[in-house]
Amino acid sequence: MLAVTILGNNSALPAFDRHPTSQVVTLNEHLFLVDCGEGTQMQIAKYRIKRSRIHHIFISHLHGDHYFGLMGLITSMGLLGRDHELHIFAPPALEQLIDLQLKAGGTLLPYSLIFHPLEEGILMQEDKFEVSCFKVFHRIDCWGFIFREKKPPRKLDGEKIKEYNIPTSFYEQLRWGKDYTTTDGVSISNELLTDVSPKGKSYAYAADTIYNESIACKVTGVDLLYHETTYLDELRERAAKRFHSTTVEAANIANIAKVNKLLIGHFSSKYEKLDEFERETRNVFPNTDLAIEGVTYRI
Amino acid sequence: MLAVTILGNNSALPAFDRHPTSQVVTLNEHLFLVDCGEGTQMQIAKYRIKRSRIHHIFISHLHGDHYFGLMGLITSMGLLGRDHELHIFAPPALEQLIDLQLKAGGTLLPYSLIFHPLEEGILMQEDKFEVSCFKVFHRIDCWGFIFREKKPPRKLDGEKIKEYNIPTSFYEQLRWGKDYTTTDGVSISNELLTDVSPKGKSYAYAADTIYNESIACKVTGVDLLYHETTYLDELRERAAKRFHSTTVEAANIANIAKVNKLLIGHFSSKYEKLDEFERETRNVFPNTDLAIEGVTYRI
Repeated sequence: MLAVTILGNNSALPAFDRHPTSQVVTLNEHLFLVDCGEGTQMQIAKYRIKRSRIHHIFISHLHGDHYFGLMGLITSMGLLGRDHELHIFAPPALEQLIDLQLKAGGTLLPYSLIFHPLEEGILMQEDKFEVSCFKVFHRIDCWGFIFREKKPPRKLDGEKIKEYNIPTSFYEQLRWGKDYTTTDGVSISNELLTDVSPKGKSYAYAADTIYNESIACKVTGVDLLYHETTYLDELRERAAKRFHSTTVEAANIANIAKVNKLLIGHFSSKYEKLDEFERETRNVFPNTDLAIEGVTYRI
Repeated sequence: MLAVTILGNNSALPAFDRHPTSQVVTLNEHLFLVDCGEGTQMQIAKYRIKRSRIHHIFISHLHGDHYFGLMGLITSMGLLGRDHELHIFAPPALEQLIDLQLKAGGTLLPYSLIFHPLEEGILMQEDKFEVSCFKVFHRIDCWGFIFREKKPPRKLDGEKIKEYNIPTSFYEQLRWGKDYTTTDGVSISNELLTDVSPKGKSYAYAADTIYNESIACKVTGVDLLYHETTYLDELRERAAKRFHSTTVEAANIANIAKVNKLLIGHFSSKYEKLDEFERETRNVFPNTDLAIEGVTYRI
Protein backbone atom coordinates (compact mmCIF):
# COMPACT_ATOMS: atom_id res chain seq x y z
CA MET A 1 0.00 0.00 0.00
CA LEU A 2 1.34 3.41 -0.99
CA ALA A 3 -0.50 6.60 -0.07
CA VAL A 4 0.14 10.21 0.84
CA THR A 5 -1.71 12.26 3.45
CA ILE A 6 -1.52 16.04 3.26
CA LEU A 7 -0.84 17.89 6.53
CA GLY A 8 -0.06 21.30 5.02
CA ASN A 9 -0.79 22.59 1.52
CA ASN A 10 0.03 26.27 1.74
CA SER A 11 3.09 28.28 0.81
CA ALA A 12 5.15 30.22 3.34
CA LEU A 13 2.51 32.46 4.94
CA PRO A 14 -0.10 30.41 6.78
CA ALA A 15 -3.57 31.61 5.68
CA PHE A 16 -7.22 30.55 5.46
CA ASP A 17 -6.48 27.79 7.97
CA ARG A 18 -4.02 26.28 5.49
CA HIS A 19 -0.67 25.24 6.90
CA PRO A 20 2.90 25.22 5.62
CA THR A 21 4.11 22.11 3.82
CA SER A 22 4.06 18.67 5.37
CA GLN A 23 2.97 15.26 4.12
CA VAL A 24 2.94 11.71 5.43
CA VAL A 25 3.77 8.95 2.98
CA THR A 26 2.43 5.53 3.98
CA LEU A 27 4.31 2.61 2.45
CA ASN A 28 2.96 -0.64 3.84
CA GLU A 29 3.65 -0.41 7.58
CA HIS A 30 6.06 2.53 7.23
CA LEU A 31 5.20 6.18 7.76
CA PHE A 32 7.55 8.73 6.20
CA LEU A 33 7.22 12.39 7.06
CA VAL A 34 8.04 14.67 4.13
CA ASP A 35 8.79 18.24 5.16
CA CYS A 36 7.71 19.64 8.48
CA GLY A 37 6.46 23.23 8.44
CA GLU A 38 5.45 25.05 11.62
CA GLY A 39 2.49 23.35 13.31
CA THR A 40 3.13 19.90 11.83
CA GLN A 41 2.98 18.24 15.25
CA MET A 42 -0.47 19.78 15.77
CA GLN A 43 -1.59 18.58 12.32
CA ILE A 44 -0.27 15.10 13.11
CA ALA A 45 -2.45 15.08 16.24
CA LYS A 46 -5.44 16.55 14.42
CA TYR A 47 -5.38 13.90 11.68
CA ARG A 48 -4.50 11.09 14.09
CA ILE A 49 -1.25 10.12 12.43
CA LYS A 50 0.61 7.66 14.68
CA ARG A 51 3.73 9.65 15.34
CA SER A 52 5.36 6.69 17.08
CA ARG A 53 5.38 4.96 13.69
CA ILE A 54 7.34 7.76 12.02
CA HIS A 55 10.98 6.70 11.92
CA HIS A 56 12.14 8.68 8.87
CA ILE A 57 11.76 12.37 8.14
CA PHE A 58 12.74 13.93 4.81
CA ILE A 59 13.33 17.69 4.59
CA SER A 60 13.50 19.10 1.06
CA HIS A 61 15.16 22.45 1.80
CA LEU A 62 15.80 25.02 4.50
CA HIS A 63 13.06 27.54 3.89
CA GLY A 64 11.20 27.78 7.16
CA ASP A 65 7.82 26.74 5.79
CA HIS A 66 9.36 23.31 5.18
CA TYR A 67 11.14 22.73 8.49
CA PHE A 68 10.24 25.17 11.29
CA GLY A 69 8.00 22.47 12.82
CA LEU A 70 10.81 19.93 13.05
CA MET A 71 12.32 20.96 16.41
CA GLY A 72 8.89 20.95 18.06
CA LEU A 73 8.17 17.48 16.72
CA ILE A 74 11.58 16.11 17.72
CA THR A 75 11.34 17.44 21.27
CA SER A 76 7.71 16.36 21.69
CA MET A 77 8.67 12.85 20.59
CA GLY A 78 11.25 12.93 23.38
CA LEU A 79 8.69 14.14 25.96
CA LEU A 80 6.43 11.27 24.90
CA GLY A 81 9.20 8.83 25.80
CA ARG A 82 10.14 7.69 22.31
CA ASP A 83 13.04 5.21 22.34
CA HIS A 84 13.11 4.11 18.70
CA GLU A 85 15.77 5.81 16.62
CA LEU A 86 14.71 8.61 14.28
CA HIS A 87 16.38 9.19 10.90
CA ILE A 88 16.44 12.66 9.42
CA PHE A 89 17.36 13.10 5.76
CA ALA A 90 17.93 16.80 5.18
CA PRO A 91 20.22 19.46 3.73
CA PRO A 92 23.57 19.28 5.54
CA ALA A 93 23.23 22.64 7.34
CA LEU A 94 20.26 21.39 9.34
CA GLU A 95 22.38 19.11 11.49
CA GLN A 96 24.09 21.99 13.28
CA LEU A 97 20.79 23.85 13.71
CA ILE A 98 19.24 20.84 15.43
CA ASP A 99 22.28 20.32 17.66
CA LEU A 100 22.45 23.97 18.69
CA GLN A 101 18.78 24.13 19.56
CA LEU A 102 18.92 20.95 21.62
CA LYS A 103 21.96 22.32 23.40
CA ALA A 104 20.34 25.72 24.03
CA GLY A 105 17.41 23.97 25.71
CA GLY A 106 19.62 21.59 27.68
CA THR A 107 17.61 18.85 25.95
CA LEU A 108 18.80 15.25 26.03
CA LEU A 109 16.58 13.19 23.73
CA PRO A 110 15.76 9.72 25.08
CA TYR A 111 16.22 8.29 21.57
CA SER A 112 18.90 8.37 18.86
CA LEU A 113 18.61 11.01 16.20
CA ILE A 114 20.49 9.91 13.10
CA PHE A 115 21.22 12.61 10.57
CA HIS A 116 21.73 11.86 6.86
CA PRO A 117 22.83 14.80 4.72
CA LEU A 118 20.94 14.78 1.41
CA GLU A 119 22.59 13.93 -1.86
CA GLU A 120 21.18 12.77 -5.17
CA GLY A 121 20.57 9.04 -5.53
CA ILE A 122 19.25 6.28 -3.30
CA LEU A 123 18.64 7.35 0.31
CA MET A 124 17.12 4.12 1.60
CA GLN A 125 17.21 0.67 0.11
CA GLU A 126 15.02 -2.02 1.66
CA ASP A 127 13.69 -5.34 0.43
CA LYS A 128 10.29 -3.99 -0.44
CA PHE A 129 10.90 -0.34 -1.23
CA GLU A 130 13.46 2.31 -1.90
CA VAL A 131 13.56 6.06 -1.40
CA SER A 132 15.62 8.19 -3.74
CA CYS A 133 16.41 11.84 -3.97
CA PHE A 134 16.75 14.26 -6.89
CA LYS A 135 17.66 17.91 -7.23
CA VAL A 136 15.03 20.47 -8.08
CA PHE A 137 15.53 24.14 -8.88
CA HIS A 138 14.79 26.63 -6.15
CA ARG A 139 16.31 29.78 -4.67
CA ILE A 140 18.42 27.64 -2.35
CA ASP A 141 19.49 23.98 -2.60
CA CYS A 142 16.34 21.90 -2.78
CA TRP A 143 15.63 18.20 -3.24
CA GLY A 144 12.68 16.05 -4.25
CA PHE A 145 12.03 12.47 -3.14
CA ILE A 146 10.72 9.33 -4.85
CA PHE A 147 9.13 6.53 -2.84
CA ARG A 148 9.01 3.32 -4.83
CA GLU A 149 7.63 -0.11 -3.94
CA LYS A 150 9.75 -2.97 -5.17
CA LYS A 151 7.94 -6.07 -6.38
CA PRO A 152 9.32 -9.39 -7.60
CA PRO A 153 9.19 -9.25 -11.39
CA ARG A 154 6.95 -12.36 -11.76
CA LYS A 155 3.63 -13.53 -10.30
CA LEU A 156 2.99 -17.28 -9.71
CA ASP A 157 0.39 -19.00 -11.87
CA GLY A 158 -1.40 -21.19 -9.32
CA GLU A 159 -2.72 -23.78 -11.77
CA LYS A 160 0.53 -24.30 -13.61
CA ILE A 161 2.46 -24.64 -10.36
CA LYS A 162 0.11 -27.45 -9.28
CA GLU A 163 0.27 -29.06 -12.72
CA TYR A 164 4.07 -29.19 -12.68
CA ASN A 165 4.16 -30.04 -8.98
CA ILE A 166 6.65 -27.31 -8.02
CA PRO A 167 7.75 -27.46 -4.35
CA THR A 168 6.82 -24.41 -2.25
CA SER A 169 10.46 -23.94 -1.33
CA PHE A 170 11.08 -22.88 -4.95
CA TYR A 171 8.26 -20.30 -5.15
CA GLU A 172 10.41 -17.31 -4.22
CA GLN A 173 12.97 -18.19 -6.89
CA LEU A 174 10.16 -18.53 -9.41
CA ARG A 175 9.00 -15.02 -8.50
CA TRP A 176 12.43 -13.72 -9.32
CA GLY A 177 12.44 -15.40 -12.78
CA LYS A 178 14.34 -18.65 -12.26
CA ASP A 179 13.55 -21.76 -14.32
CA TYR A 180 12.71 -24.96 -12.41
CA THR A 181 14.60 -28.22 -12.94
CA THR A 182 12.77 -31.40 -11.90
CA THR A 183 14.47 -34.24 -10.02
CA ASP A 184 14.62 -36.01 -13.42
CA GLY A 185 16.72 -33.11 -14.76
CA VAL A 186 13.94 -31.65 -16.93
CA SER A 187 14.01 -27.84 -17.09
CA ILE A 188 10.66 -26.07 -16.95
CA SER A 189 10.74 -22.51 -18.24
CA ASN A 190 9.84 -19.80 -15.74
CA GLU A 191 7.50 -18.25 -18.30
CA LEU A 192 5.35 -21.37 -18.23
CA LEU A 193 4.88 -21.03 -14.47
CA THR A 194 4.58 -17.28 -13.91
CA ASP A 195 3.19 -14.06 -15.33
CA VAL A 196 4.67 -10.59 -15.36
CA SER A 197 4.02 -8.91 -12.02
CA PRO A 198 2.25 -5.57 -11.84
CA LYS A 199 5.02 -3.11 -11.13
CA GLY A 200 5.48 -1.50 -7.73
CA LYS A 201 3.73 1.79 -7.10
CA SER A 202 5.67 5.02 -6.91
CA TYR A 203 5.21 8.53 -5.56
CA ALA A 204 7.40 11.51 -6.39
CA TYR A 205 7.46 14.69 -4.32
CA ALA A 206 9.01 17.52 -6.32
CA ALA A 207 9.21 20.02 -3.43
CA ASP A 208 9.52 23.75 -4.28
CA THR A 209 10.83 24.44 -7.76
CA ILE A 210 10.83 26.74 -10.72
CA TYR A 211 9.54 25.19 -13.96
CA ASN A 212 12.28 22.98 -15.33
CA GLU A 213 11.64 20.18 -17.78
CA SER A 214 14.58 18.16 -16.54
CA ILE A 215 12.45 17.34 -13.50
CA ALA A 216 10.19 15.35 -15.83
CA CYS A 217 13.09 13.02 -16.63
CA LYS A 218 13.67 12.41 -12.94
CA VAL A 219 10.08 11.43 -12.21
CA THR A 220 9.18 9.70 -15.47
CA GLY A 221 6.36 7.20 -15.17
CA VAL A 222 5.64 7.55 -11.47
CA ASP A 223 2.09 6.75 -10.45
CA LEU A 224 1.60 9.96 -8.53
CA LEU A 225 3.59 13.17 -8.86
CA TYR A 226 3.27 15.99 -6.35
CA HIS A 227 4.31 19.24 -8.04
CA GLU A 228 3.98 22.64 -6.45
CA THR A 229 1.64 25.25 -7.98
CA THR A 230 2.25 28.33 -5.90
CA TYR A 231 0.56 30.55 -8.49
CA LEU A 232 -2.11 30.49 -11.18
CA ASP A 233 -1.01 30.75 -14.79
CA GLU A 234 -1.41 34.55 -15.01
CA LEU A 235 1.40 35.01 -12.46
CA ARG A 236 3.94 32.89 -14.31
CA GLU A 237 6.47 35.72 -14.32
CA ARG A 238 6.23 36.18 -10.59
CA ALA A 239 6.48 32.41 -10.18
CA ALA A 240 9.72 32.30 -12.16
CA LYS A 241 11.16 35.27 -10.30
CA ARG A 242 10.54 33.52 -6.99
CA PHE A 243 11.63 30.08 -8.20
CA HIS A 244 8.11 28.68 -7.98
CA SER A 245 5.72 27.12 -10.52
CA THR A 246 2.21 27.61 -11.85
CA THR A 247 -0.72 25.31 -12.59
CA VAL A 248 0.09 25.04 -16.30
CA GLU A 249 3.76 24.41 -15.60
CA ALA A 250 3.03 21.59 -13.16
CA ALA A 251 0.65 20.06 -15.69
CA ASN A 252 3.31 20.30 -18.41
CA ILE A 253 5.80 18.42 -16.26
CA ALA A 254 3.17 15.74 -15.57
CA ASN A 255 2.52 15.38 -19.30
CA ILE A 256 6.18 15.19 -20.28
CA ALA A 257 6.91 12.72 -17.46
CA LYS A 258 3.89 10.62 -18.44
CA VAL A 259 2.86 10.19 -14.82
CA ASN A 260 -0.49 8.63 -14.04
CA LYS A 261 -1.79 11.30 -11.69
CA LEU A 262 -0.77 14.77 -10.55
CA LEU A 263 -1.25 16.26 -7.07
CA ILE A 264 -0.82 20.03 -6.73
CA GLY A 265 -0.17 22.18 -3.66
CA HIS A 266 1.94 24.89 -1.96
CA PHE A 267 -0.76 27.42 -2.78
CA SER A 268 0.08 31.09 -2.34
CA SER A 269 -1.66 32.94 0.48
CA LYS A 270 -2.93 35.34 -2.21
CA TYR A 271 -5.64 32.83 -3.02
CA GLU A 272 -8.49 31.96 -0.68
CA LYS A 273 -10.33 29.71 -3.15
CA LEU A 274 -8.54 26.90 -4.92
CA ASP A 275 -11.06 25.98 -7.67
CA GLU A 276 -9.13 27.87 -10.31
CA PHE A 277 -5.98 25.86 -9.51
CA GLU A 278 -7.89 22.67 -10.24
CA ARG A 279 -9.52 24.02 -13.39
CA GLU A 280 -6.34 25.42 -14.97
CA THR A 281 -4.25 22.35 -14.22
CA ARG A 282 -6.89 19.86 -15.42
CA ASN A 283 -7.15 21.80 -18.68
CA VAL A 284 -3.63 20.66 -19.45
CA PHE A 285 -3.40 17.44 -17.40
CA PRO A 286 -6.89 16.07 -16.62
CA ASN A 287 -5.96 13.52 -13.95
CA THR A 288 -5.07 16.16 -11.34
CA ASP A 289 -6.15 16.53 -7.73
CA LEU A 290 -5.73 19.44 -5.32
CA ALA A 291 -3.69 18.53 -2.23
CA ILE A 292 -6.23 19.08 0.57
CA GLU A 293 -5.19 18.97 4.22
CA GLY A 294 -6.35 15.86 6.03
CA VAL A 295 -7.02 13.96 2.79
CA THR A 296 -5.19 10.73 1.95
CA TYR A 297 -4.45 10.02 -1.70
CA ARG A 298 -4.04 6.29 -2.32
CA ILE A 299 -1.91 5.17 -5.21
CA MET B 1 -4.28 50.90 29.26
CA LEU B 2 -2.49 47.74 30.33
CA ALA B 3 -3.79 44.29 29.36
CA VAL B 4 -2.59 40.83 28.49
CA THR B 5 -4.03 38.52 25.83
CA ILE B 6 -3.27 34.81 26.04
CA LEU B 7 -2.23 33.09 22.79
CA GLY B 8 -0.99 29.84 24.32
CA ASN B 9 -1.59 28.46 27.81
CA ASN B 10 -0.19 24.94 27.63
CA SER B 11 3.10 23.43 28.64
CA ALA B 12 5.49 21.83 26.16
CA LEU B 13 3.28 19.20 24.51
CA PRO B 14 0.42 20.84 22.59
CA ALA B 15 -2.83 19.11 23.60
CA PHE B 16 -6.61 19.60 23.73
CA ASP B 17 -6.24 22.44 21.24
CA ARG B 18 -4.10 24.31 23.77
CA HIS B 19 -0.93 25.86 22.46
CA PRO B 20 2.57 26.43 23.82
CA THR B 21 3.24 29.68 25.64
CA SER B 22 2.71 33.09 24.08
CA GLN B 23 1.08 36.28 25.29
CA VAL B 24 0.52 39.79 23.96
CA VAL B 25 0.86 42.65 26.44
CA THR B 26 -0.96 45.81 25.39
CA LEU B 27 0.41 48.98 26.97
CA ASN B 28 -1.39 52.01 25.53
CA GLU B 29 -0.58 51.88 21.81
CA HIS B 30 2.24 49.33 22.23
CA LEU B 31 1.96 45.59 21.68
CA PHE B 32 4.64 43.44 23.31
CA LEU B 33 4.89 39.78 22.46
CA VAL B 34 5.98 37.65 25.41
CA ASP B 35 7.31 34.23 24.42
CA CYS B 36 6.54 32.70 21.08
CA GLY B 37 5.84 28.96 21.07
CA GLU B 38 5.21 27.00 17.88
CA GLY B 39 2.08 28.22 16.12
CA THR B 40 2.14 31.73 17.61
CA GLN B 41 1.83 33.34 14.18
CA MET B 42 -1.35 31.30 13.57
CA GLN B 43 -2.72 32.30 16.99
CA ILE B 44 -1.92 35.95 16.22
CA ALA B 45 -3.99 35.64 13.04
CA LYS B 46 -6.80 33.73 14.79
CA TYR B 47 -7.21 36.34 17.51
CA ARG B 48 -6.71 39.26 15.12
CA ILE B 49 -3.69 40.72 16.87
CA LYS B 50 -2.17 43.44 14.68
CA ARG B 51 1.25 41.94 14.09
CA SER B 52 2.45 45.12 12.38
CA ARG B 53 2.11 46.83 15.76
CA ILE B 54 4.44 44.37 17.48
CA HIS B 55 7.87 45.99 17.70
CA HIS B 56 9.23 44.21 20.76
CA ILE B 57 9.41 40.50 21.49
CA PHE B 58 10.52 39.11 24.85
CA ILE B 59 11.68 35.47 25.10
CA SER B 60 11.97 34.10 28.64
CA HIS B 61 14.15 31.05 27.95
CA LEU B 62 15.25 28.62 25.27
CA HIS B 63 12.92 25.70 25.81
CA GLY B 64 11.20 25.17 22.49
CA ASP B 65 7.67 25.67 23.76
CA HIS B 66 8.64 29.29 24.42
CA TYR B 67 10.40 30.17 21.16
CA PHE B 68 9.96 27.61 18.33
CA GLY B 69 7.37 29.94 16.74
CA LEU B 70 9.76 32.88 16.58
CA MET B 71 11.50 32.11 13.27
CA GLY B 72 8.15 31.60 11.51
CA LEU B 73 6.87 34.91 12.84
CA ILE B 74 10.06 36.79 11.92
CA THR B 75 10.11 35.46 8.36
CA SER B 76 6.37 35.95 7.85
CA MET B 77 6.74 39.57 8.96
CA GLY B 78 9.37 39.89 6.23
CA LEU B 79 7.10 38.31 3.60
CA LEU B 80 4.40 40.78 4.59
CA GLY B 81 6.77 43.64 3.76
CA ARG B 82 7.45 44.90 7.27
CA ASP B 83 9.92 47.80 7.31
CA HIS B 84 9.73 48.90 10.95
CA GLU B 85 12.57 47.61 13.11
CA LEU B 86 11.89 44.67 15.42
CA HIS B 87 13.55 44.35 18.84
CA ILE B 88 14.10 40.95 20.34
CA PHE B 89 14.99 40.63 24.02
CA ALA B 90 16.11 37.07 24.63
CA PRO B 91 18.74 34.78 26.13
CA PRO B 92 22.07 35.49 24.42
CA ALA B 93 22.29 32.12 22.61
CA LEU B 94 19.21 32.90 20.53
CA GLU B 95 21.02 35.49 18.43
CA GLN B 96 23.20 32.90 16.71
CA LEU B 97 20.23 30.57 16.19
CA ILE B 98 18.30 33.30 14.41
CA ASP B 99 21.26 34.29 12.27
CA LEU B 100 22.03 30.71 11.24
CA GLN B 101 18.44 29.98 10.27
CA LEU B 102 18.15 33.16 8.23
CA LYS B 103 21.41 32.29 6.52
CA ALA B 104 20.35 28.67 5.85
CA GLY B 105 17.24 29.95 4.09
CA GLY B 106 19.09 32.65 2.18
CA THR B 107 16.63 35.04 3.84
CA LEU B 108 17.25 38.78 3.81
CA LEU B 109 14.69 40.46 6.03
CA PRO B 110 13.39 43.77 4.66
CA TYR B 111 13.53 45.24 8.17
CA SER B 112 16.12 45.57 10.94
CA LEU B 113 16.17 42.93 13.61
CA ILE B 114 17.78 44.27 16.76
CA PHE B 115 18.85 41.73 19.30
CA HIS B 116 19.14 42.54 23.02
CA PRO B 117 20.62 39.81 25.21
CA LEU B 118 18.67 39.54 28.46
CA GLU B 119 20.08 40.60 31.76
CA GLU B 120 18.42 41.53 35.04
CA GLY B 121 17.26 45.11 35.36
CA ILE B 122 15.58 47.65 33.11
CA LEU B 123 15.23 46.50 29.49
CA MET B 124 13.29 49.46 28.15
CA GLN B 125 12.81 52.88 29.64
CA GLU B 126 10.28 55.20 28.01
CA ASP B 127 8.42 58.30 29.22
CA LYS B 128 5.25 56.41 29.98
CA PHE B 129 6.39 52.93 30.80
CA GLU B 130 9.30 50.68 31.55
CA VAL B 131 9.98 47.00 31.06
CA SER B 132 12.27 45.21 33.45
CA CYS B 133 13.60 41.72 33.72
CA PHE B 134 14.25 39.38 36.66
CA LYS B 135 15.68 35.90 37.02
CA VAL B 136 13.44 32.97 37.82
CA PHE B 137 14.50 29.43 38.65
CA HIS B 138 14.23 26.85 35.89
CA ARG B 139 16.26 23.97 34.47
CA ILE B 140 18.07 26.43 32.19
CA ASP B 141 18.55 30.20 32.46
CA CYS B 142 15.13 31.77 32.54
CA TRP B 143 13.83 35.32 32.98
CA GLY B 144 10.56 36.99 33.89
CA PHE B 145 9.40 40.43 32.78
CA ILE B 146 7.59 43.33 34.45
CA PHE B 147 5.65 45.86 32.39
CA ARG B 148 4.99 49.00 34.36
CA GLU B 149 3.13 52.18 33.44
CA LYS B 150 4.76 55.32 34.73
CA LYS B 151 2.49 58.09 35.94
CA PRO B 152 3.36 61.55 37.24
CA PRO B 153 3.10 61.38 41.03
CA ARG B 154 0.42 64.13 41.30
CA LYS B 155 -2.97 64.86 39.70
CA LEU B 156 -4.08 68.47 39.08
CA ASP B 157 -6.99 69.83 41.11
CA GLY B 158 -8.96 71.76 38.44
CA GLU B 159 -10.72 74.16 40.83
CA LYS B 160 -7.65 75.10 42.83
CA ILE B 161 -5.65 75.71 39.68
CA LYS B 162 -8.29 78.16 38.48
CA GLU B 163 -8.51 79.78 41.92
CA TYR B 164 -4.77 80.42 42.07
CA ASN B 165 -4.61 81.30 38.37
CA ILE B 166 -1.75 78.91 37.55
CA PRO B 167 -0.47 79.25 33.94
CA THR B 168 -0.89 76.10 31.77
CA SER B 169 2.85 76.13 31.05
CA PHE B 170 3.42 75.17 34.69
CA TYR B 171 0.95 72.24 34.76
CA GLU B 172 3.53 69.58 33.93
CA GLN B 173 5.83 70.77 36.73
CA LEU B 174 2.87 70.71 39.12
CA ARG B 175 2.24 67.05 38.14
CA TRP B 176 5.79 66.25 39.15
CA GLY B 177 5.36 67.88 42.58
CA LYS B 178 6.84 71.35 42.18
CA ASP B 179 5.52 74.32 44.19
CA TYR B 180 4.36 77.39 42.25
CA THR B 181 5.75 80.88 42.86
CA THR B 182 3.57 83.81 41.76
CA THR B 183 4.96 86.86 39.97
CA ASP B 184 4.71 88.59 43.39
CA GLY B 185 7.08 86.00 44.82
CA VAL B 186 4.44 84.17 46.86
CA SER B 187 5.00 80.41 47.00
CA ILE B 188 1.93 78.18 46.66
CA SER B 189 2.44 74.67 47.97
CA ASN B 190 2.04 71.85 45.44
CA GLU B 191 -0.18 70.00 47.88
CA LEU B 192 -2.75 72.80 47.70
CA LEU B 193 -2.99 72.43 43.91
CA THR B 194 -2.72 68.67 43.33
CA ASP B 195 -3.71 65.28 44.69
CA VAL B 196 -1.77 62.05 44.78
CA SER B 197 -2.02 60.33 41.40
CA PRO B 198 -3.27 56.76 41.15
CA LYS B 199 -0.12 54.74 40.55
CA GLY B 200 0.68 53.23 37.15
CA LYS B 201 -0.53 49.70 36.48
CA SER B 202 1.89 46.82 36.36
CA TYR B 203 2.00 43.28 35.00
CA ALA B 204 4.60 40.65 35.89
CA TYR B 205 5.18 37.52 33.84
CA ALA B 206 7.12 34.97 35.90
CA ALA B 207 7.76 32.53 33.02
CA ASP B 208 8.62 28.90 33.89
CA THR B 209 9.92 28.40 37.39
CA ILE B 210 10.20 26.15 40.37
CA TYR B 211 8.61 27.47 43.56
CA ASN B 212 10.95 30.06 45.00
CA GLU B 213 9.83 32.73 47.42
CA SER B 214 12.45 35.19 46.26
CA ILE B 215 10.30 35.67 43.16
CA ALA B 216 7.70 37.28 45.42
CA CYS B 217 10.19 40.03 46.31
CA LYS B 218 10.76 40.74 42.63
CA VAL B 219 7.08 41.15 41.80
CA THR B 220 5.84 42.72 45.04
CA GLY B 221 2.68 44.74 44.65
CA VAL B 222 2.11 44.30 40.92
CA ASP B 223 -1.49 44.54 39.81
CA LEU B 224 -1.43 41.29 37.89
CA LEU B 225 1.01 38.43 38.28
CA TYR B 226 1.21 35.59 35.77
CA HIS B 227 2.69 32.55 37.50
CA GLU B 228 2.93 29.12 35.91
CA THR B 229 0.98 26.20 37.39
CA THR B 230 2.10 23.26 35.33
CA TYR B 231 0.71 20.79 37.89
CA LEU B 232 -2.00 20.44 40.51
CA ASP B 233 -0.97 20.33 44.15
CA GLU B 234 -0.79 16.52 44.37
CA LEU B 235 2.11 16.51 41.89
CA ARG B 236 4.24 19.00 43.80
CA GLU B 237 7.18 16.60 43.89
CA ARG B 238 7.11 16.08 40.15
CA ALA B 239 6.79 19.87 39.74
CA ALA B 240 9.93 20.46 41.80
CA LYS B 241 11.85 17.75 39.97
CA ARG B 242 11.05 19.39 36.65
CA PHE B 243 11.57 22.96 37.89
CA HIS B 244 7.89 23.80 37.56
CA SER B 245 5.23 24.97 40.03
CA THR B 246 1.81 23.96 41.28
CA THR B 247 -1.45 25.78 41.94
CA VAL B 248 -0.80 26.17 45.66
CA GLU B 249 2.75 27.35 45.06
CA ALA B 250 1.65 30.04 42.58
CA ALA B 251 -1.00 31.17 45.05
CA ASN B 252 1.59 31.34 47.85
CA ILE B 253 3.81 33.58 45.76
CA ALA B 254 0.83 35.82 44.99
CA ASN B 255 0.03 36.08 48.69
CA ILE B 256 3.60 36.82 49.76
CA ALA B 257 4.01 39.37 46.96
CA LYS B 258 0.67 40.99 47.86
CA VAL B 259 -0.32 41.27 44.21
CA ASN B 260 -3.85 42.29 43.33
CA LYS B 261 -4.64 39.45 40.96
CA LEU B 262 -3.08 36.17 39.84
CA LEU B 263 -3.24 34.63 36.38
CA ILE B 264 -2.22 30.98 36.07
CA GLY B 265 -1.18 28.96 33.00
CA HIS B 266 1.36 26.59 31.38
CA PHE B 267 -0.93 23.68 32.15
CA SER B 268 0.48 20.19 31.73
CA SER B 269 -0.88 18.09 28.86
CA LYS B 270 -1.84 15.52 31.52
CA TYR B 271 -4.92 17.59 32.26
CA GLU B 272 -7.81 18.00 29.86
CA LYS B 273 -10.03 19.94 32.28
CA LEU B 274 -8.75 23.00 34.09
CA ASP B 275 -11.43 23.51 36.76
CA GLU B 276 -9.32 21.95 39.45
CA PHE B 277 -6.48 24.42 38.73
CA GLU B 278 -8.87 27.27 39.40
CA ARG B 279 -10.37 25.68 42.53
CA GLU B 280 -7.05 24.80 44.16
CA THR B 281 -5.45 28.16 43.47
CA ARG B 282 -8.47 30.20 44.59
CA ASN B 283 -8.52 28.26 47.84
CA VAL B 284 -5.23 29.92 48.70
CA PHE B 285 -5.45 33.14 46.64
CA PRO B 286 -9.07 33.95 45.78
CA ASN B 287 -8.48 36.61 43.11
CA THR B 288 -7.13 34.15 40.55
CA ASP B 289 -8.04 33.62 36.90
CA LEU B 290 -7.12 30.80 34.51
CA ALA B 291 -5.17 32.02 31.48
CA ILE B 292 -7.52 31.08 28.62
CA GLU B 293 -6.43 31.35 25.00
CA GLY B 294 -8.01 34.25 23.15
CA VAL B 295 -9.03 36.03 26.36
CA THR B 296 -7.74 39.50 27.23
CA TYR B 297 -7.21 40.32 30.90
CA ARG B 298 -7.40 44.05 31.53
CA ILE B 299 -5.54 45.49 34.47
